[in-house]
Amino acid sequence: MLDLTGPYGIHHLPYGVFAHDDEAPRVGVRIGDDVLDLAGVEAVGLIDSAGAFGAPTLNPFLAQGRAAWAAARARITELLRDQSDRLDGLLHPVAEVTLSMPFAVGDYVDFYSSEHHATNLGKLFRPGAEPLLPNWKHLPIGYHGRSGTVVVTGADIVRPCGQRKAPTDEAPSFGPSTRLDIEAELGFVVGVPTGLGQRVSVDDFAEHVFGVVLVNDWSARDIQGWEYQPLGPFLGKSFATSVAGWVTPLDALSAAWVEPPAQEPAVLPYLTGSVNQGLDITMTVEWNGTVVSRPPFAPMYWTPAQQLAHLTVNGASVRTGDLYASGTVSGPDRDQWGSFIELTWGGAEPVTVGEDKAERTFLRDGDTVTITAAAPGPDGTVIGLGEVTGTILPAIGG
Amino acid sequence: MLDLTGPYGIHHLPYGVFAHDDEAPRVGVRIGDDVLDLAGVEAVGLIDSAGAFGAPTLNPFLAQGRAAWAAARARITELLRDQSDRLDGLLHPVAEVTLSMPFAVGDYVDFYSSEHHATNLGKLFRPGAEPLLPNWKHLPIGYHGRSGTVVVTGADIVRPCGQRKAPTDEAPSFGPSTRLDIEAELGFVVGVPTGLGQRVSVDDFAEHVFGVVLVNDWSARDIQGWEYQPLGPFLGKSFATSVAGWVTPLDALSAAWVEPPAQEPAVLPYLTGSVNQGLDITMTVEWNGTVVSRPPFAPMYWTPAQQLAHLTVNGASVRTGDLYASGTVSGPDRDQWGSFIELTWGGAEPVTVGEDKAERTFLRDGDTVTITAAAPGPDGTVIGLGEVTGTILPAIGG
Repeated sequence: MLDLTGPYGIHHLPYGVFAHDDEAPRVGVRIGDDVLDLAGVEAVGLIDSAGAFGAPTLNPFLAQGRAAWAAARARITELLRDQSDRLDGLLHPVAEVTLSMPFAVGDYVDFYSSEHHATNLGKLFRPGAEPLLPNWKHLPIGYHGRSGTVVVTGADIVRPCGQRKAPTDEAPSFGPSTRLDIEAELGFVVGVPTGLGQRVSVDDFAEHVFGVVLVNDWSARDIQGWEYQPLGPFLGKSFATSVAGWVTPLDALSAAWVEPPAQEPAVLPYLTGSVNQGLDITMTVEWNGTVVSRPPFAPMYWTPAQQLAHLTVNGASVRTGDLYASGTVSGPDRDQWGSFIELTWGGAEPVTVGEDKAERTFLRDGDTVTITAAAPGPDGTVIGLGEVTGTILPAIGG
Repeated sequence: MLDLTGPYGIHHLPYGVFAHDDEAPRVGVRIGDDVLDLAGVEAVGLIDSAGAFGAPTLNPFLAQGRAAWAAARARITELLRDQSDRLDGLLHPVAEVTLSMPFAVGDYVDFYSSEHHATNLGKLFRPGAEPLLPNWKHLPIGYHGRSGTVVVTGADIVRPCGQRKAPTDEAPSFGPSTRLDIEAELGFVVGVPTGLGQRVSVDDFAEHVFGVVLVNDWSARDIQGWEYQPLGPFLGKSFATSVAGWVTPLDALSAAWVEPPAQEPAVLPYLTGSVNQGLDITMTVEWNGTVVSRPPFAPMYWTPAQQLAHLTVNGASVRTGDLYASGTVSGPDRDQWGSFIELTWGGAEPVTVGEDKAERTFLRDGDTVTITAAAPGPDGTVIGLGEVTGTILPAIGG
């Protein structure tokens, strides 16, 4: 019996790419604790994606646009509600499949849109100075990350080596990062591309963005702190960024939109629109099994529609598979902060995690971090976003 | 009669992707003012690339590695020296073909490796402060750019719009950039990929890098100046980056390697190697037909091998088609500076360009910038790198 009402119920239907037994990776949709093999459903003539579901990434489906996304969702809903034997052999327990990267990443952009996070990091990285820089409330600050090192949930994270120099050190030294951290973020996956010179207005957000995916933007704070001026983070971030294996379509999130925080000073017209909303999504960060934080997305200062409008206002094109992430999600309260540098205030105030109640400031080898999230679904249901998890392996070399 | 001795002579043999008449884009090699259709050469059985030359990008060939690159070069040299009628119909005048992007870009990284450029920009962006930040001589500063907006030579550049705020303005305003600039750079194209966690040592540079290509990293200084703190340049750069249509293989540059500048303080061991060299390449920047600068690559402080070693020392993988650029090439003298913000000292000291001797500080609509470069080839020959050119079109919207 399929679970149609839980966090992966019929109101949710996230897409991913999976392999079962020795079969080639293909597109599936999650329903409860099962995966429906959409390439198989197409092969028996019950759905038509023009072959997109047989691809090893979601990209061909993402490129088809909102009408195709809606039609596929309607048809899958119909087939699952029906629960006839037509789907026999096309459903596999999630525990028996292997997830791969759900989409081929075009460009990866990381924003910095939580006022609480930006304020905390300003205090930690530039003590004594005004934590929010003068531009922060005028535009969604962001930068490009490394798309080639975006990995799927479950991939081990090798501790990076690099240069670091504490303010008290005379010269930089090289070695494994000693301040390895996470950033709990929400990522937005672009479906419909644009041409060079074309802008995506705030109101056109949902014509281009297919859905959302949890992101952990692993960060080596010691490497980042030494390298980031004047051109921004580079090796402190580029070693790995993890994403969940399931992409939740915007169509599942209709009950989750909320009014975003008021923006003062008023933003420029290109950052306004009638469909400019936040998302009522609450994340849960587990460190070695202990919940250390529950970052709320709703108070994010800049909305995903504003981020995309900003990203394209200079005429930059977007491609199918482009990923842009929100930046670390941190709420106003300490137990809502989405990175460990905030939670332990720069490593000065340890937290206790795991069955053995061990003290932690930054990540140790063998530590596991798992981020999950929940959003309101229609009619009192709950949507559980696909988890993103990773375990730290020791540095290679050094 | 083929020109075997000029800047595109038989000692050079750069690769590109071209289309002739209505035929599909394919790989070609330039010889003099002609293009040899390598897909055609393979079709008649005179060379074997396992089909790579029929692809619409160089990527399949780039992925084959140094032995395949050397074998192809040897065979093409043999065929061209022969000058028999076997190549009849397979050579097309360059003027009759259309060049497309020579490679599909994976990640695009831009370094900042000219001490003269970094010093000039430090003075212009942070007046009164120490122009070179404390990290600059310890590591090659770099950041990720937008790979989806890398375009081939000849593509028009639409003036970007965006936010800008002069220090004297009370609030930011929106509109077309008024400080549109260039950055003359040399780009390095990765052929052989690495896995996550693998480093490329300085000495392994030529096992992974296929060749070099001229780059113009168009820059909107007003947008960049307002947005770039604390996470680096974003929309001030992401609207377009132009590359030449011809990629010069490292195999052609054996006579161009030179001793790089002494590095003081000494760099960390991972940035050293026995094969750590600079390139004796001199660029020429033409603005509306007037040569305004001749930036020399030889004095670049950080070498391309050091840049790749740094880029991967944290375990970040590289992919076939990754492009990393040197950063603006500026020499010690004013007529060697590779950006207009330097040449006109922030717009304060105009230059005179074009047949009508017009004054310029930054780019006006209709202006054309063309960058070429020359390197020593073997036996007193000269290598002319493929040009990168673009013309500014008026902003759309505003």
